[in-house]
Amino acid sequence: MQIAAKEIANMLGGSLEGDGDAVISKPGKIEEGGAGTLTFLANPKYESFAYTTEAAALLVQKDFQPSMPVAAKALIRVEDVYDAVRKLLEKFGEERESPTGVSDKAFVHPDAVLAAGVSIGVFSVIEEGARIGAGTLIYPQVFIGKGAIIGKGCVLHPGVKVFHACEIGDNCILQANVVIGSDGFGFAPQQDGSYKKIPQIGNVILEDNIEIGANTTIDRATMGSTVIRQGVKLDNLIMVAHNVEIGDHTVVAAQAGFAGSTKIGRYCRIGGQAGFVGHISVADHTQVQAQSGVAAPVKEKGVALYGSPAIPYKDYLRSYAVFKKLPDLLRKIRELEKKINP
Amino acid sequence: MQIAAKEIANMLGGSLEGDGDAVISKPGKIEEGGAGTLTFLANPKYESFAYTTEAAALLVQKDFQPSMPVAAKALIRVEDVYDAVRKLLEKFGEERESPTGVSDKAFVHPDAVLAAGVSIGVFSVIEEGARIGAGTLIYPQVFIGKGAIIGKGCVLHPGVKVFHACEIGDNCILQANVVIGSDGFGFAPQQDGSYKKIPQIGNVILEDNIEIGANTTIDRATMGSTVIRQGVKLDNLIMVAHNVEIGDHTVVAAQAGFAGSTKIGRYCRIGGQAGFVGHISVADHTQVQAQSGVAAPVKEKGVALYGSPAIPYKDYLRSYAVFKKLPDLLRKIRELEKKINP
Amino acid sequence: MQIAAKEIANMLGGSLEGDGDAVISKPGKIEEGGAGTLTFLANPKYESFAYTTEAAALLVQKDFQPSMPVAAKALIRVEDVYDAVRKLLEKFGEERESPTGVSDKAFVHPDAVLAAGVSIGVFSVIEEGARIGAGTLIYPQVFIGKGAIIGKGCVLHPGVKVFHACEIGDNCILQANVVIGSDGFGFAPQQDGSYKKIPQIGNVILEDNIEIGANTTIDRATMGSTVIRQGVKLDNLIMVAHNVEIGDHTVVAAQAGFAGSTKIGRYCRIGGQAGFVGHISVADHTQVQAQSGVAAPVKEKGVALYGSPAIPYKDYLRSYAVFKKLPDLLRKIRELEKKINP
Repeated sequence: MQIAAKEIANMLGGSLEGDGDAVISKPGKIEEGGAGTLTFLANPKYESFAYTTEAAALLVQKDFQPSMPVAAKALIRVEDVYDAVRKLLEKFGEERESPTGVSDKAFVHPDAVLAAGVSIGVFSVIEEGARIGAGTLIYPQVFIGKGAIIGKGCVLHPGVKVFHACEIGDNCILQANVVIGSDGFGFAPQQDGSYKKIPQIGNVILEDNIEIGANTTIDRATMGSTVIRQGVKLDNLIMVAHNVEIGDHTVVAAQAGFAGSTKIGRYCRIGGQAGFVGHISVADHTQVQAQSGVAAPVKEKGVALYGSPAIPYKDYLRSYAVFKKLPDLLRKIRELEKKINP
Repeated sequence: MQIAAKEIANMLGGSLEGDGDAVISKPGKIEEGGAGTLTFLANPKYESFAYTTEAAALLVQKDFQPSMPVAAKALIRVEDVYDAVRKLLEKFGEERESPTGVSDKAFVHPDAVLAAGVSIGVFSVIEEGARIGAGTLIYPQVFIGKGAIIGKGCVLHPGVKVFHACEIGDNCILQANVVIGSDGFGFAPQQDGSYKKIPQIGNVILEDNIEIGANTTIDRATMGSTVIRQGVKLDNLIMVAHNVEIGDHTVVAAQAGFAGSTKIGRYCRIGGQAGFVGHISVADHTQVQAQSGVAAPVKEKGVALYGSPAIPYKDYLRSYAVFKKLPDLLRKIRELEKKINP
Repeated sequence: MQIAAKEIANMLGGSLEGDGDAVISKPGKIEEGGAGTLTFLANPKYESFAYTTEAAALLVQKDFQPSMPVAAKALIRVEDVYDAVRKLLEKFGEERESPTGVSDKAFVHPDAVLAAGVSIGVFSVIEEGARIGAGTLIYPQVFIGKGAIIGKGCVLHPGVKVFHACEIGDNCILQANVVIGSDGFGFAPQQDGSYKKIPQIGNVILEDNIEIGANTTIDRATMGSTVIRQGVKLDNLIMVAHNVEIGDHTVVAAQAGFAGSTKIGRYCRIGGQAGFVGHISVADHTQVQAQSGVAAPVKEKGVALYGSPAIPYKDYLRSYAVFKKLPDLLRKIRELEKKINP
């Protein structure tokens, strides 16, 4: 894509200074942006790059006051740099995903139902009774099981597996190799120490506007549903066990795990590699630090947690500050003992 | 599936009260179970739901004494509610997996050997010399490498990859995208700081009655075999490195990891996100708390561990209780010092 | 493969004692090696096996002095046992990977470019504009997106997904179900608590001689590139977020995770399940213990770290040694208090 600085300024409702014909081929970070890039200054600590960059254009906050001449050919002033960058990335990214129709190398069961504008990639499988909503884009090598329902405007990347009877809402994005609806981990212990499988006959429900990262797995419920509420964003390699529920607009970083039947509130922010025991409820707006282990219900809203088992964030840091001095403390206690019991 | 309460009572060897013709379409949890569900009361803390549920039928322990009239249309009394539920889930789940025969859209090498009743899904690949046992159900998009052996009555879900020369016993279930027999992580450090790959020419052996969770990976041995003994259950996203051995009927929760050549005993229970260093032996019946890091051999049977590095479970909790008070302790020590060295 | 002991000795430049015609069918560990195996003695603690093994041949260090007669039929003395074993494994492993040409059951876009000697497995997909280098071996069920570039001599195992515009150098090995170039986890928080996706229009670059373990995911950059430098080895189930850079010859064990924009130095060694926060730089030769959480920049080269948050390795162990005694310490402090404030 080739686009002039003045068109960008126009698109963003920004004001232009310098060469409006400067040609932009892609966005780039200010510390990396070479010739032909459109770069941006959001964090003041990068300001010096504004005076040395070879970028074709530089996006700045409306009230930016340069302390020397800006090196970029064009300067574009906008209300909100971050939002402008997001819009630009959408502009430059929009060529990426294009409907291809239903491949004749896909397998679509005659009793599956495809709405208008659905694309099904090569070597994908749509089983009996599955229903795919309008405009949904299914990449190659995807599997949609019997009776599964996929909403409108979804994107399922290569290798995604959605099992029978699972339901996915509108505008959801599933990254590569995501598994939705694998069996929950349920086994009945037997007298002899072995285990018998407990069949998992529930399903998984994803509401609308959800994104699930690559290689994340969401197990189906034993009975009922594992539920991911609207707007939830899960990163890569996350484990969501059977009968878990994750509330609206909660965001979870990579490699976190949720054990069975746990219920996470709305608007939570959960760090990478954090873990949750099963059968607990976690209040709305909870924040969990990376690698923490939440082992008890969280009843109060808006709490920040850290540690394994997790305690209030600040308490953990205070205790950990002393933990680092423990050998010293031990020495002091021994000295005190000597003085008192000489 | 539609089934009358009296048929369920009969199937479970239970005694029936109320409307034996009440029609059941699915099992459900007592706190969720709506019209047409068969629900159950196992945990006394849910008893109140028994008097308000709209469920068609309620399963209870033989000697259950309701304190007011039960709301479900039918009441079924059984010896063991948990076992009855498991049987019911089997009943309602049995329609799910049905043999489909060998798809003409699968690739089966002419020198692969398929026993009677094998199903091979669309776009699956069975390489030269592979052998698949009777009644095994291979879903779409599965890969079975050269000379791999799969036993009888197995289920391999979509996207499973089993590499050359690996051996899987009877009645094993591999959830979606499981990888069996990827190369072990073995590299010889060179003088210049780079690494040379050490070829991994061993295999993976799974004995019988094993279940492996979605996206779990089990690496092949450098030489010899990585071995998963009978009855082992591994959850999702677990890492089993080369030459590891996991003993009979050990159960491992999601995202745990086992480094190379470690040997885990029988009947162990291992929590999620736990890790084990390489080259250690862990005794039978060991219990490891989630997120623990087992860094030394475990010689005594039946020990419970927690922490990173892991120590006895109760010791960890006792120390952690004091850890939470460390800032307080530090203050006290300073006060004592002041008094003694004024 | 069947090969005589004298041929092995010759191949390794070693000196032979005993029966040079002893037939070897495979290498094996000294504690397991049965008839027909070639085994080796590297670690002195296994020496006793040298006198009882049924192996056909035993590899030993040049200056090995047996304390009684060696049981193997042939003894081969070499300069460096470890290096000799690696060469042997290469010899016995070389039959494994053989070019198969381009399958007529693969989908190769007419505008993709395949160099000489490329193999493309059954049900693999090579999209428009992708370029595959000479001799590269692509197994079944692989996906290569639009315009992606794969170098020479690579091996991509079944289920690998490489997204559009990503670039992979020469001699790289991607184990099963690896995902290269899934979208980075970037969302702009909105006033109402929901999130808008930030398009991820960058790519992933892998330089040469890299190995990536099964089910590992490497996200594409928001802008610019996520970069894995030459010689890096990543184990299974690792998460590399957008815009991360990992330096030359760094080695990372399974299930570790790197948050966005973090920059890891060269020659680092990172343990399993370790985590790194985003936007930090980590110096060359850093060593990180398994399960550690690196939460701050590491400026000094060659440091070893442990803990969450990570501190110097020895400090962590010293503090943890006292942590284990904390209940004891608490008791002592209380006793001191009683004596001083009776």
